[in-house]
Amino acid sequence: MASIFTKIVRGEIPCHKIAEDERYLAFLDIMPVTKGHTLVIPKEEIDYIFDLPDDLLAGLHVFSKKVAKAIEAVVPCQRIGVAVVGLEVPHAHIHLIPLNSIHDINFAHRMKATPEELAAVADSIREAFKKQNT
Amino acid sequence: MASIFTKIVRGEIPCHKIAEDERYLAFLDIMPVTKGHTLVIPKEEIDYIFDLPDDLLAGLHVFSKKVAKAIEAVVPCQRIGVAVVGLEVPHAHIHLIPLNSIHDINFAHRMKATPEELAAVADSIREAFKKQNT
Repeated sequence: MASIFTKIVRGEIPCHKIAEDERYLAFLDIMPVTKGHTLVIPKEEIDYIFDLPDDLLAGLHVFSKKVAKAIEAVVPCQRIGVAVVGLEVPHAHIHLIPLNSIHDINFAHRMKATPEELAAVADSIREAFKKQNT
Repeated sequence: MASIFTKIVRGEIPCHKIAEDERYLAFLDIMPVTKGHTLVIPKEEIDYIFDLPDDLLAGLHVFSKKVAKAIEAVVPCQRIGVAVVGLEVPHAHIHLIPLNSIHDINFAHRMKATPEELAAVADSIREAFKKQNT
């Protein structure tokens, strides 16, 4: 069965999209750890991040860097943290989490965000991404 | 002033080394979150992970994949998690953390490990790395 992220890639489930190219997609986590928390995935459905071929893994992190620079441009934070856990959705994904403290990477604490709030955050990051990459 | 990690690269401070090449070094975190917790750094001292040039960033993650495969081979875990926080030591570093639960990525919980225990873990991961990469 297709993973929930493959369904997002196919457009069968909506997302607050930030950016995409042929191989990768970035969209907001709908249960953000901090405001601006974004997921970056390879479109190809591979469960475990370290099972990605080297080239796909390398490209995923370079794409994530571009997304992180866009988040930084609009979300107040010291820097963007990175986490890959992968025990829940069987489709590799990188968490990009705006941080002000080491303790901000804590998946036990999720914010509540309305769809309207998420849409507004996604809009501003997407615009920053476009500006930085055209 | 040189970062503590640059001093480790130069051999001025000892470490429980796992692997290295021209550009990267992997060694155990001496305050592991879980057993086998390893740090992977670029030898070049750059504070923020997303300030690494694309090629250096891509190579860091491909090198980390090789290290993760070695950790997996000897440390019982479901998979290896990845975290980059970067608010403490001003030299980019990737945490590779053996995980059995999403809550295993929690920097508030550090294990106590003796130098002897760390040396034994490092030996076994280093051997696995050599076996897998020769």
